[in-house]
Amino acid sequence: MEQTDVLIIGGSAGGIVAGITARRHYKDAKITVIRKEKAGQVLVPCGLPYIFGTVGTPEKNIMPDALLSGNNIELIVGEATSIDRKAKTVTTANGESIGYQKLVLATGSVPIIIPIPGKDLENVFCATKDVDYLNGLLKTLDGVKDVVIIGGGFIGLEFGDEFKKRGLNVTIVEMLPHCLQIVFDEGFCVLSEDKLKERGINVKTNAQAEAILGDKKVKGLKLTNGEELKADMLFMCIGVRADTGLAQKAELQIGETRGIWVDEYGRTVDKDIFAIGDCAEKRSFFTKKPSALKLASVACNEGRIVGANLFGLKRRNEGVIGSFATIIGEFGVGQAGLTEAAATTAGFDFVIGEVKTPDKHPGSLPGTKELGMKLIFEKASQEILGGQVYGGSTVGEVVNILTALIQSRMTANEVATFQFGTHPLFTPSPVPYPIANAAEIALAKL
Amino acid sequence: MEQTDVLIIGGSAGGIVAGITARRHYKDAKITVIRKEKAGQVLVPCGLPYIFGTVGTPEKNIMPDALLSGNNIELIVGEATSIDRKAKTVTTANGESIGYQKLVLATGSVPIIIPIPGKDLENVFCATKDVDYLNGLLKTLDGVKDVVIIGGGFIGLEFGDEFKKRGLNVTIVEMLPHCLQIVFDEGFCVLSEDKLKERGINVKTNAQAEAILGDKKVKGLKLTNGEELKADMLFMCIGVRADTGLAQKAELQIGETRGIWVDEYGRTVDKDIFAIGDCAEKRSFFTKKPSALKLASVACNEGRIVGANLFGLKRRNEGVIGSFATIIGEFGVGQAGLTEAAATTAGFDFVIGEVKTPDKHPGSLPGTKELGMKLIFEKASQEILGGQVYGGSTVGEVVNILTALIQSRMTANEVATFQFGTHPLFTPSPVPYPIANAAEIALAKL
Repeated sequence: MEQTDVLIIGGSAGGIVAGITARRHYKDAKITVIRKEKAGQVLVPCGLPYIFGTVGTPEKNIMPDALLSGNNIELIVGEATSIDRKAKTVTTANGESIGYQKLVLATGSVPIIIPIPGKDLENVFCATKDVDYLNGLLKTLDGVKDVVIIGGGFIGLEFGDEFKKRGLNVTIVEMLPHCLQIVFDEGFCVLSEDKLKERGINVKTNAQAEAILGDKKVKGLKLTNGEELKADMLFMCIGVRADTGLAQKAELQIGETRGIWVDEYGRTVDKDIFAIGDCAEKRSFFTKKPSALKLASVACNEGRIVGANLFGLKRRNEGVIGSFATIIGEFGVGQAGLTEAAATTAGFDFVIGEVKTPDKHPGSLPGTKELGMKLIFEKASQEILGGQVYGGSTVGEVVNILTALIQSRMTANEVATFQFGTHPLFTPSPVPYPIANAAEIALAKL
Repeated sequence: MEQTDVLIIGGSAGGIVAGITARRHYKDAKITVIRKEKAGQVLVPCGLPYIFGTVGTPEKNIMPDALLSGNNIELIVGEATSIDRKAKTVTTANGESIGYQKLVLATGSVPIIIPIPGKDLENVFCATKDVDYLNGLLKTLDGVKDVVIIGGGFIGLEFGDEFKKRGLNVTIVEMLPHCLQIVFDEGFCVLSEDKLKERGINVKTNAQAEAILGDKKVKGLKLTNGEELKADMLFMCIGVRADTGLAQKAELQIGETRGIWVDEYGRTVDKDIFAIGDCAEKRSFFTKKPSALKLASVACNEGRIVGANLFGLKRRNEGVIGSFATIIGEFGVGQAGLTEAAATTAGFDFVIGEVKTPDKHPGSLPGTKELGMKLIFEKASQEILGGQVYGGSTVGEVVNILTALIQSRMTANEVATFQFGTHPLFTPSPVPYPIANAAEIALAKL
């Protein structure tokens, strides 16, 4: 029987980072990753949509295995099928056993398939992280014209935008009143929908799928209002659920949001078993209540926490802030922390500062885009709770500035005097610099 | 005699922001700006270099006067020539008097001219913030071929890069062993110099100007080593000095770095007179020692502090972090806080984490650039002291993430678990995300 010090089940972003971090903190430990994907077949998870319009093939969207070998992390390609917590062993599909001292579950998530008629028809796809599957999707795309996407979250929009780049007729069907409604406040949703429409993507909101039509292959989608949409391909993209099969079999506790329950150090109810990433339950940074947020960046963050904690608790998980961005055409839009809607739901009393400004200065510079920002501050403590931003190619890192301000719990006054640097070609002008300015506007309401 | 509540002398970035901030905090105050520039003639200071290759004319690089009128701030075009501190009045060049309750000096800085022979020849220019002057420079550029720039700081490099875009033969002469040596550590300087050379710009370091050659017009530059450089235009760009004439006449105290001395609330020795921006002395965020840093972003920050403090001290200036970025061709490079050299000089004991990673993910995405980062952490407190970064168009805002981490005095452990968000087209991968990764590497040395 093979024996290892640290066994990580799952070799996507979170698992890799947990391994690398464990190597940095425990130089002499034997570290092993077991995963299903063969050598050179682990996909960059967030890169999935971009395979289909920008990058070209799944093979160009791969995380290098050198991340493991270069850090002296052993790779076993195989499927872990059960955990014996008492014996501290993991059994694989081909009957082998691996002993561990510390086990990290990084089993990820799987796409949710809506159980509607027609879901098993040919040309129904979802965002499955598998090279062969995605090559199948790529081949199918060459033969289709009308694609309907069920789910107007950011993954659905990204796939839609990429499909559109291939010249397909794309319709996005969203059950809620707006696309992206779970992640943005209404104004930002509407702007995003406008950009989708500008790009010729059909957007149907308040629209619920009833049945996928067709005999063998997809022919269309029927909505609950009776409307029928023509489609020769159907892409289902309503979210993912934590892959907790292995954990449940091992009788580890499952949390309220159906992820594996972990304490603030990343430990499951078994102190030698940790869980990270999409399979693990999170807590909100703001309320400490369970959160179902699933992002590769969060998985990596948890990998950095747990990788350091394996043989001694060094890092506490303060809860997820939730920070991300997406792009529609050349319109970037992102968010960090709580939206107005989320802050209301959480029970905060808050003020808002909103601004618009060119993202370069002077605004006459070629390529200048409008940058819009909305910041939210709690009234009593004056701490920043969240921010939304739209603009161009800098939106992703602007969101990260906001994340840093939130993570350090800066007050509106501190944010207003945040010592940003500026450059004509890189940033807005220092005079209306949006972060300081939005904070100042919010302060005037306090 | 006109009487105002708040009189601001100087209408560039700092003065404007002080006015806007004062309006927000003191809704009923009468606020007046007096400045030399006529209506529509206040230049975006950092935009100056970009007039000459990218933007086209000084008239397209103007800060709108609506920033004043839109905030109910009165504008007087004129020159303040003296302050009567006892009477609390300011006299202008045309003999008028303006009474004030609170006075803000935002008189800025003027380019330093090296007193070498030939400095008054035709076709010797510097970065003077004046529309007519810059139109003169623009006209001159059409008739010249060989331009020598004295001073390899970031302004010199930006002008050089823009002059090159016009097809001119550009040589940068820098006295120190490296261009940008005051703002970056050697590795970053060398990379920047390489980019300059790649763009066909001649770089002469360890080179000191002795005399500008020519009879009426510039013909060349003689160096102290005897070398003569051919030039039909000479651009002098070795820095600026605080414009403190008015303050000195009013017997306000001048600080060690020759700026107007102010306390941490922005007050001069006269509690009714404040000073901000290039004319005011600063303190280091790290050591609280006097600092001569002069940046438009810092001026605006001080405008936000002083604008709020006029009738009651609300905001303390914690000292300048120093945060900025520049671009050479498409190579972005920036810095926040202390360099290794500056940290050593200040007396800190520190560790460094350095990383390189593609600035998008997967790296096969079109337009991906290498992003390099160097972070510096103090050993005992483990607090982040500074960061340098190079890459593409996101560098400016990445520098601002670092600034936020520095301003909130995050430790290496906190930086390593910073909850950044990522997106394939906007940011590096979450696996090797440079900020977390550089912190982790530094931590391993602690």
